[in-house]
Amino acid sequence: MKRIRLGMVGGGNDAFIGGVHRIASRIDGHFDLVAGALSSTPEKARASAEALGLDPARSYGSFDEMAEAEAAREDGIEAVSIVTPNHVHYPAAKAFLSRGIHVICDKPLTATFEDAEALGPAVAASDALFVLTHNYTGYPMVRQAQQMVTDGQIGTIRVVQMEYPQDWMTDAVETEGVKQAEWRTDPARSGAGGAIGDIGTHAYNLASFVTGLSGQELSADLHSFGTGRQLDDNAHIMLRYKGGARGMLWCSQVAPGCENGLRLRVYGEKGALEWAQEDPNYLWFTPHGDATRRITRNGAGAIDAATSVSRIPPGHPEGYLEGFANIYTEAASAIRAVQDGQSRDAVMGKLPGIAAGLEGMSFIRACVASSRDNAAWVTL
Amino acid sequence: MKRIRLGMVGGGNDAFIGGVHRIASRIDGHFDLVAGALSSTPEKARASAEALGLDPARSYGSFDEMAEAEAAREDGIEAVSIVTPNHVHYPAAKAFLSRGIHVICDKPLTATFEDAEALGPAVAASDALFVLTHNYTGYPMVRQAQQMVTDGQIGTIRVVQMEYPQDWMTDAVETEGVKQAEWRTDPARSGAGGAIGDIGTHAYNLASFVTGLSGQELSADLHSFGTGRQLDDNAHIMLRYKGGARGMLWCSQVAPGCENGLRLRVYGEKGALEWAQEDPNYLWFTPHGDATRRITRNGAGAIDAATSVSRIPPGHPEGYLEGFANIYTEAASAIRAVQDGQSRDAVMGKLPGIAAGLEGMSFIRACVASSRDNAAWVTL
Amino acid sequence: MKRIRLGMVGGGNDAFIGGVHRIASRIDGHFDLVAGALSSTPEKARASAEALGLDPARSYGSFDEMAEAEAAREDGIEAVSIVTPNHVHYPAAKAFLSRGIHVICDKPLTATFEDAEALGPAVAASDALFVLTHNYTGYPMVRQAQQMVTDGQIGTIRVVQMEYPQDWMTDAVETEGVKQAEWRTDPARSGAGGAIGDIGTHAYNLASFVTGLSGQELSADLHSFGTGRQLDDNAHIMLRYKGGARGMLWCSQVAPGCENGLRLRVYGEKGALEWAQEDPNYLWFTPHGDATRRITRNGAGAIDAATSVSRIPPGHPEGYLEGFANIYTEAASAIRAVQDGQSRDAVMGKLPGIAAGLEGMSFIRACVASSRDNAAWVTL
Amino acid sequence: MKRIRLGMVGGGNDAFIGGVHRIASRIDGHFDLVAGALSSTPEKARASAEALGLDPARSYGSFDEMAEAEAAREDGIEAVSIVTPNHVHYPAAKAFLSRGIHVICDKPLTATFEDAEALGPAVAASDALFVLTHNYTGYPMVRQAQQMVTDGQIGTIRVVQMEYPQDWMTDAVETEGVKQAEWRTDPARSGAGGAIGDIGTHAYNLASFVTGLSGQELSADLHSFGTGRQLDDNAHIMLRYKGGARGMLWCSQVAPGCENGLRLRVYGEKGALEWAQEDPNYLWFTPHGDATRRITRNGAGAIDAATSVSRIPPGHPEGYLEGFANIYTEAASAIRAVQDGQSRDAVMGKLPGIAAGLEGMSFIRACVASSRDNAAWVTL
Repeated sequence: MKRIRLGMVGGGNDAFIGGVHRIASRIDGHFDLVAGALSSTPEKARASAEALGLDPARSYGSFDEMAEAEAAREDGIEAVSIVTPNHVHYPAAKAFLSRGIHVICDKPLTATFEDAEALGPAVAASDALFVLTHNYTGYPMVRQAQQMVTDGQIGTIRVVQMEYPQDWMTDAVETEGVKQAEWRTDPARSGAGGAIGDIGTHAYNLASFVTGLSGQELSADLHSFGTGRQLDDNAHIMLRYKGGARGMLWCSQVAPGCENGLRLRVYGEKGALEWAQEDPNYLWFTPHGDATRRITRNGAGAIDAATSVSRIPPGHPEGYLEGFANIYTEAASAIRAVQDGQSRDAVMGKLPGIAAGLEGMSFIRACVASSRDNAAWVTL
Repeated sequence: MKRIRLGMVGGGNDAFIGGVHRIASRIDGHFDLVAGALSSTPEKARASAEALGLDPARSYGSFDEMAEAEAAREDGIEAVSIVTPNHVHYPAAKAFLSRGIHVICDKPLTATFEDAEALGPAVAASDALFVLTHNYTGYPMVRQAQQMVTDGQIGTIRVVQMEYPQDWMTDAVETEGVKQAEWRTDPARSGAGGAIGDIGTHAYNLASFVTGLSGQELSADLHSFGTGRQLDDNAHIMLRYKGGARGMLWCSQVAPGCENGLRLRVYGEKGALEWAQEDPNYLWFTPHGDATRRITRNGAGAIDAATSVSRIPPGHPEGYLEGFANIYTEAASAIRAVQDGQSRDAVMGKLPGIAAGLEGMSFIRACVASSRDNAAWVTL
Repeated sequence: MKRIRLGMVGGGNDAFIGGVHRIASRIDGHFDLVAGALSSTPEKARASAEALGLDPARSYGSFDEMAEAEAAREDGIEAVSIVTPNHVHYPAAKAFLSRGIHVICDKPLTATFEDAEALGPAVAASDALFVLTHNYTGYPMVRQAQQMVTDGQIGTIRVVQMEYPQDWMTDAVETEGVKQAEWRTDPARSGAGGAIGDIGTHAYNLASFVTGLSGQELSADLHSFGTGRQLDDNAHIMLRYKGGARGMLWCSQVAPGCENGLRLRVYGEKGALEWAQEDPNYLWFTPHGDATRRITRNGAGAIDAATSVSRIPPGHPEGYLEGFANIYTEAASAIRAVQDGQSRDAVMGKLPGIAAGLEGMSFIRACVASSRDNAAWVTL
Repeated sequence: MKRIRLGMVGGGNDAFIGGVHRIASRIDGHFDLVAGALSSTPEKARASAEALGLDPARSYGSFDEMAEAEAAREDGIEAVSIVTPNHVHYPAAKAFLSRGIHVICDKPLTATFEDAEALGPAVAASDALFVLTHNYTGYPMVRQAQQMVTDGQIGTIRVVQMEYPQDWMTDAVETEGVKQAEWRTDPARSGAGGAIGDIGTHAYNLASFVTGLSGQELSADLHSFGTGRQLDDNAHIMLRYKGGARGMLWCSQVAPGCENGLRLRVYGEKGALEWAQEDPNYLWFTPHGDATRRITRNGAGAIDAATSVSRIPPGHPEGYLEGFANIYTEAASAIRAVQDGQSRDAVMGKLPGIAAGLEGMSFIRACVASSRDNAAWVTL
C-alpha cells in the first residue's frame, strides 16, 4: 500500500507532542513525513527539518507558505499534522482544510471558543477530513470499555468518576525555562483553560467516549496554586449528565507523585468498569454480584473492539504511542476511503473530529464560567 | 493489669458492628464484656447474651435499665459500648455519662443535629470519657500519615482527595430483608444523611485527622439511585478548607466492585501521601521530585506514630480489627488514667471524641443543606 | 459458652510468636490464659506473668512444674500453647499430652527428627489433641483455594510455585543482640534447618494443604550468606510430587525488601490459583482461557470454605492475627467436641496436627540431606 | 539522516515476530524495509510482500537468492532482519554476513549447538555487525537496573530469581493449527530446547545483562506436560553463578493466567531490584533497611541509562515495541558508525551479539544435558 504524504506544523526540536505524532505516524507505516513548518523560529525550523531528514525545499517558514506551496505540488502533502500551541490550531487548520488537505490536529480544538465556532464551518466547507487527536480513545481497552457499555454489560450508568492528576507544574516551572509550561500557562497561547484545557478535556472526552453520555451541566471550582500562575492548575468539577448519571472530575498539575494519572471509573446498575492510562493493557470489569475480572489487551476476555486495534499478543505491553498510532492508522484508512470516493461522513468510524472538539471547548467554557460564578451550575 | 468491665448497648446476633466492637475490645485484652442490652427485642437480647456467655442477670431489656442497675453494682461496668442505630446514640450515651460510666460510641455521633447539640453539654457535665469510634484513625499508617504531615514532610497542603465507595446497596436491598440496609435508609433511625452519614463522615474525619485542616465550606450534590430510597446513596462534594486547600469527596453505596474503598490522597507543596483502607499496611509517600516510597507498617520507614500501635512485624498484615482495637486500647489507657486521677482532657491523646463527632454532624448538615439548595456553598 | 482455660510455655516479654498466640486465643473469645511458664529465666517469667495479669501462683518456673501443678488443680488448664524455640517443643508437648492436656504447638514440630519420631507415639498415647499452628492454613482465601482445587476448578495440577522470602537476616543480626535471630541460627535450639525450618516448612505445608499433593522427592541447594552463619538462610528447592506435578520452592531470609513474602501459585490443566500472604484477602483465579478473577474474602465469589472463617464484610481487611485465630477457634471447637465425648480423630477437621508436623520434619531432613549431597534427589 | 535499507528473511503474514521487527524498525525512523524473502512458500511470500508495499522485484523466493541479488545492487540492502524459525538462523545469517550485510537476528542464536559454533567464525570473518534481538535488554528500566548494579547500589549480589511463565501452550495447540506452536514444538526446527529455548534464554540473558554475573553450573528439571509434546514446556532450574551468587529460573508455557510473565528479582548485600516485563515502566528498588522505591521510566529517580532510551514523559507508558525499537535504533547507530569507519568492536555498546547468543546456546545445552541426567549439575 502506498504511504500517505504528510506535513507537520509545529513540532520543532524541543516540543514534546510533535515527536509523539511523528512516531505515531510511523508505527504502522501508513505515512511519510515529507514537509514541515516546524517552528515559528526560522533557525529552529531549519535545524529540526534537517534532523528529520526532510528535503530542505519542503521546510517552510510558516504554515501559510507551506499550505500554498504543497497544494501546488503534484506530490504535495495529502495530510497535515498540527501540533502547535493551541492558538495556532484554528488558522493553521483553516489554511489546509481550504486547500483540501486533510488535517490531524492536536487538542484542545482551539484557544478560544470564537475560534472553535469559526472552525466548524471551515471543516464543513472543506472536502478534507478533520481529525482531533484525543489519543486516549485509541487505547484498545478503552475501545473495549466503550463496546461493553454499548452492549449493556454494566446496565444503565449511574456514576462516572474521572481524574487526571499530574505533578510537573507543582513548582512554578514556567518561570524556570520549561517551554512546555510557558505556553500552557499563558492565556494568549493556551486560551482560558489551564489544566482543564490541557488535560481536563482529555478526561472529559474519554468519559464521553466510553459512556456515550452527554453532559448537561457542571459546577467547577478552578484554582491556581502555582505562584503567579494565571490559569488553573487544579480543578474540581461536579457533572450532571443527560439521563440522570452523575459525575466528578478532578484534574491537577500540582499533585506530586502523579505522572499522567488519567483514570476512568464507570458504575452502572449491572456492573462497573475501571481503566487507568498508566497501566493501559488492563480493563477491570465487575459484573455486579460477581468477582472483578482483569481483562487484558488481546488476552482472554478481550473482544474485537480491542483486538482489532492491538498489534502484539497479550502480556507484551502496548503503550501510549501505540494508542496514539491507532488514531493515525484509522485516519489513514479514512483518508484512503475518501480518496477512493467514499463520503466523508461515512469514514470517520470511532475517530474524534470536530464534534468532539466543540464538546471539549464547551466543557472548558462552562468550567471557566462556573468557576467565575463561584461554582454555579452552568449548562453544557 | 486488671481488665475494664464493659457493657454493650445494641450488637445483637445479626448486627455487624457490635461483633466488631467486641473483637476490638478483646484483641489486646483490656476489657471484659460483662453486661449488655443487646437488642430492643427481648428474645433476641436474651439469645445474644447467652451466645456471648453473659451472666443472664446482667442481660438487660433496655439501656436505661442497664445503666441504673450497673451503676448500682459494686462490680458494675466501668465503660459501655454503644453500637445501635444512630437515633439511639444520644439517649443511651446520656444515660451512662450521667452515671459516670465511660462511653465508647459508634459514629455518626447522633441521628439529628439537635441530639448532637444536646450531647455536647451531657459530655461536659460528666466525669466520664466519651470516645467516638472513628476507627479508621486507629490504623498505624494513618497515624504515620498524620505525623508526617505534622512534621512538614509534604509542606503546605493544597489538595485533598477523599473517596469512599461501596457496592452493597446497588440493588434496593432494604426491601429484601437486609437489616443493615433497613435502618440505614430510614431517616427516622439514620438521620438526614444516608451514605454521607454512614461513610462520608468517615472519609471526612479521616482527612481532617491526617491533614489537621478545618473545612470552611462545601458544595454537595447528593443523590439516591436505589429505587424508592429516601436517603442519599451517592454524594459528590467539593470542599474548601481554611487556609486555602481544596478538596473533593466522593462516597457511594451503589458502586459495583467497590467493597469498602475508603481512600485518602493528600498533595502538598513538598510531597504527597496516599493511603487506601483495603490495603492498610502500606503508605505511599512521594517527596516532590523523588521516587515514590512504599512505607510499610512496622517496616523500614515506619515511624513511632505507626510502630507504637502495631503488634506484629512488617509483612504480617494487620487489618480492620486491629485498627479498631487501637481505639479500644487507647480508650483503656485513657480510662485507667482517669481512674488514676488524671484530668479527663489530658488523657484523650489521638482518640476521637465529642469534637470530632460534632464536626461530622456539621458535615452531614452542610451536605444536606447544600444539596437541597442545588449544591450551593454552605459554611461548615 | 464457657471459655477454655489455657496455659502457655514460652512467650515471655521479648518473644514475637508468644504475643501472636495470645492475641489469636483472645480474638474470638474462646480461651482464657490463666497459667504460664513464660521464660526459662525466672525473673523474666515473673515480669511477663505480671504484665499479662496472671495469678502469680500460676506463673511457673518450668513447663514440668506447670504440667504437674495444673494437672492437679480442679480448675487447671485444659490446653497449653507451646511457643518456645524448637528444641523445647518435644519435651514440653510430651509433659502435657501425658497428663491429658491439649497441646497447641508452634511449628516446626521439633528441632530434630528423632524428637519428631518420638512425639508421634506420645500423641497417639494421649487422649488429648495435638494442634500444630501452621497458621497460614487458617486464612480464609487459603481455605477457598483448597476447596476450589478439591472441586476440580483448576483440573489436574501440573506446577506448584512456592516462595517465602524475608529480609530481616540480611545482616548478621544474630551477632547484634536480636534474640529472634540468635536461636534461629543456633543448630542446638533450631535444629538442622535454618530458613527451611523457620519459613520453608510453612511454604511447603501451605502448598500441600491447598493442592492435596504429596511430595515424592526433592533436590535442594541450601546456602548461608550471612557471615559466620551455620544454618541456611537461603534455599532453592526443586520438587516432584506424587502423580507427576512439579514444584519449586524458594525461601530466603536475606532478600532485601521482602518482609514476609509467602506466596503460592498453582497451575492446573484447567486453571490457576494465586495467593500472597501479604495481601491475604485476595485470591486470584484464572479459569484457563478466561479472564483472571480477583476473589475477595467474604465478597462476591467467596465460597463457604472462606466465609465460614471470616468475621467481617469484604473490603474490611482481616490479617495475620485473624488467620491465626481461626486455628485457635477451630482448636476450641475440637477441644469442646472431645470434652463432649467425641472421638479425637473425628474433630480435627482442617486443623494441622502431628501428620503435618512429621511431613514438615521430613521436608527439612530431605532438604538437608539433599544439599549435603550436592542437591541430589532425596525421597520424601 | 538517511534511512538504512533493510531486508527481511521470514516474517510472512501469519508470523508474530516478523511484524514486531518491522514496527521496531520503523518507530524511530532509522530503517526502510525494501526487500524480503518473507516466506518459504512462494505464494505467501508474494502476498506478504505486496501487503507491505515492497517492490515485487525485491521479493525473493529464498534468502540465498536475496543475499546474492541485493549484494549486487548499488541500492541493495545494508542490513537484514532474520525472523525465521530457529533452524534457518545459521544459514541465513551466514549468507548475509559473508556478503558484508549487517545481520539483526532473532533469538535463540540457532537451533543446534553445532550451528552456533559455526556461526561464531562466520561473524568473526565478516566486516558486518551481528545483532541478536534479546529485546528485553532494550527496556529503559532494565538499562537502569543494570547501571544501578554496576554503580554498587545493591552491593554484592547473593540471589537472582528469574521467571518467565506463559499460558498459551496449556492445551496441545500445536495439534490445532497454531503455527507459532507447531515449529516451537518441533525439534527439527526449534532445536533441543522448547520453553527453555523460546523464553528461558530470554530470562537467563536478562539476568546476565542486569547482574553482570556469569553462570557457572546449573541443575535443570525439564518436563513436557502437553499431550504428545516432544520438547519441554516447563522448566525448573537452579543456578550457581561464578563468585557465589545463587539463582533460580522457572519458565513455563503451561501456566494459565500468565501471558508473558518475564520477571527478574536481584538481591544483594545492600539492596534489591525487581522488574516485571508486563509492567515495564516501573523498577522497584529497595535500599536495604529503607522503604522500597517505585522508580518510573523518565520519572523522578530515573538515571541517564534509562532516560537516554526513553521517548516520552513519565506516566505515558512505553511498551514492548519501544523496548524492541531501542535495539533497532542502537543497531542503526552502530551500523552508521561502522559505515563511518569505526571499528566493529567499538560500536556495539549494550547491543547483544554473538557472545550473548553463544551463552544462550550453552544455557540450552546445559539444561538439556542436566535434565537428561536427572538434574545433575552441569557446567556452563
